[in-house]
Amino acid sequence: MKQHLIFLCLIYSTMTNAKEKNSIQSTIINLETEAFVRWIQGDPTGFLEISAPDVVYFDPFQERRLNGIEELAKLYLPMKGQFKADNFAMLDPVVQTAGKMAVLTFNFESRQGEKVQKWNCTEVYRFEADETWKICQTHWSLTKPELK
Amino acid sequence: MKQHLIFLCLIYSTMTNAKEKNSIQSTIINLETEAFVRWIQGDPTGFLEISAPDVVYFDPFQERRLNGIEELAKLYLPMKGQFKADNFAMLDPVVQTAGKMAVLTFNFESRQGEKVQKWNCTEVYRFEADETWKICQTHWSLTKPELK
Repeated sequence: MKQHLIFLCLIYSTMTNAKEKNSIQSTIINLETEAFVRWIQGDPTGFLEISAPDVVYFDPFQERRLNGIEELAKLYLPMKGQFKADNFAMLDPVVQTAGKMAVLTFNFESRQGEKVQKWNCTEVYRFEADETWKICQTHWSLTKPELK
Repeated sequence: MKQHLIFLCLIYSTMTNAKEKNSIQSTIINLETEAFVRWIQGDPTGFLEISAPDVVYFDPFQERRLNGIEELAKLYLPMKGQFKADNFAMLDPVVQTAGKMAVLTFNFESRQGEKVQKWNCTEVYRFEADETWKICQTHWSLTKPELK
């Protein structure tokens, strides 16, 4: 009987962990998708709103890693209304979680008319004291860029 | 007296947390440095040894994210002995930690003779069941690549 109880507890605990992981995964992917919907309309503030004060950031056009939300805002805010895309696709998103952090990785395609841009992306989300998930690390890079 | 005790407990807890974070930071940076020392001698197996089975991986030369240690080994093992660098520098490494994950970001320079290569790098380490830190996500990209 005791063994049965332990076995049932193990199954329950595994199911609860799996459910919790699925819930984190969909929360993270929803946050990212909502920010992208705003992004392709030329609004970068969606990403700023879900980034943590100590966010670190890479993209291919910066000399070095940006450190903190102020440096990221200095990059993003002047871009408001300066770009658009018809649509985007997060390809094969994967979320790896452990405790209070979750890593979202995906390949990304955005389309504007005939032009397709292909990117690699890593977002690290952290569960904050106010019980929201915020991005503490963003890394954008070009997929197979055509180099000189 | 009670308030003094609470205050002392808070200070102790803060000091312990800070000490723990410093210890994680140096552990992560040491793991990465040791793997790089082998890497610049043409040995990519150092990174394979500290990567988790579910590691995901981006670099600028892949069509898509690599998924899992087998795909990474398939990329890395044929590179053994095929490259060398005189030295390398991890510039301004930052480790952000929360529970069982730690994100290491840095700009990277390697030199071979007069040739300098500049990179952006994000490594996500995870504390595994066997109580070792393993890389579960690697993202390499070129810093300001000269595009066609």
